[in-house]
Amino acid sequence: MGAAPEDAGIDALIELMARLPGLGPRSARRAVLMMLKRRGQVMAPLAQAMAQVALNARDCQICGNISTTEICPICQDPARATREICVVEDVADLWALERAGVFRGRYHVLGGTLSALDGLGPDELGIPRLARRVTDEGIAEVILALNATVDGQTTAHYIADALAGTEAQISTLAQGVPVGGELDYLDDGTLGAALRARRRI
Amino acid sequence: MGAAPEDAGIDALIELMARLPGLGPRSARRAVLMMLKRRGQVMAPLAQAMAQVALNARDCQICGNISTTEICPICQDPARATREICVVEDVADLWALERAGVFRGRYHVLGGTLSALDGLGPDELGIPRLARRVTDEGIAEVILALNATVDGQTTAHYIADALAGTEAQISTLAQGVPVGGELDYLDDGTLGAALRARRRI
Repeated sequence: MGAAPEDAGIDALIELMARLPGLGPRSARRAVLMMLKRRGQVMAPLAQAMAQVALNARDCQICGNISTTEICPICQDPARATREICVVEDVADLWALERAGVFRGRYHVLGGTLSALDGLGPDELGIPRLARRVTDEGIAEVILALNATVDGQTTAHYIADALAGTEAQISTLAQGVPVGGELDYLDDGTLGAALRARRRI
Repeated sequence: MGAAPEDAGIDALIELMARLPGLGPRSARRAVLMMLKRRGQVMAPLAQAMAQVALNARDCQICGNISTTEICPICQDPARATREICVVEDVADLWALERAGVFRGRYHVLGGTLSALDGLGPDELGIPRLARRVTDEGIAEVILALNATVDGQTTAHYIADALAGTEAQISTLAQGVPVGGELDYLDDGTLGAALRARRRI
């Protein structure tokens, strides 16, 4: 069974769309059909925007964020704090922090965690580059916002060691009860961490 | 809150993706992030396929199917029965019939149902064109595969009337119990139709 009736171009488009996360063969077909019916208003602008981004997207040379400019908008923004760097595993984490609007400094995107298996060493994660930035830019604080997984925490420890000789203070995200979280549904590890890190009110 | 952090090109792409059926802002963001990380393997081929289809897609002049060729692959296919036309409301219906592989003739895609409100009259649905085809091509049977809705059935009656002067036999899809359907869950209308159209075994 082909994706669409026998038209090679439309078939190929549906198969490519079906590879996107959140879309399967059925929803890809539906999306392509909708685009086909609204070629001028939807498909042509989308194709153009996508080609433009595919052509121009690159990893920011400073922080590793992905953007369509040589230096990403965050690194370019003069309004942002220049003495704080938040280290994240992935661009998705950077986006999440930006959506929350809780951090106004700059970033370092690792692009993964240390993993001999995946061939990801300190160089691949740009840790020497991060260390140079910390020294050259006179960074006051490096916040390690890595995932609370074994890999994330191992990498956090490695980075903390690598930056131990610098002036920067190293910090990490607090662990505890999520806002709106119910104790009843929390795992034991989180409950324990929240209890150990309890604070006076 | 912007879709992505401050990059105008990526923001625009996420917003366009979010308009596709089955994708919302969150899943569009996730899809674009995945494309950004796999620009060469996923994003560039997808953008190119989409641009190609956007450029070449057109309504088949014979049947109204959408394809990337002047005449659609179904109308071009010499292996298909030339004396049967199946009339459907929408390209989606044509695709569904093709996936099922149960019809080997050709199609006429109306692109809607008769609707004064939407400005859809017989001309917009190509009904005079269908009538000419029936005469010119010596069509033996026209199968009206319209939706079992009031609008679909009204349009089916109109088409049956319009083709009454031709040689073609006009038929419509059977109504009854869906394959695998449980009587307990069927609506009264379908049950009634299935009972009236009962057949000896």
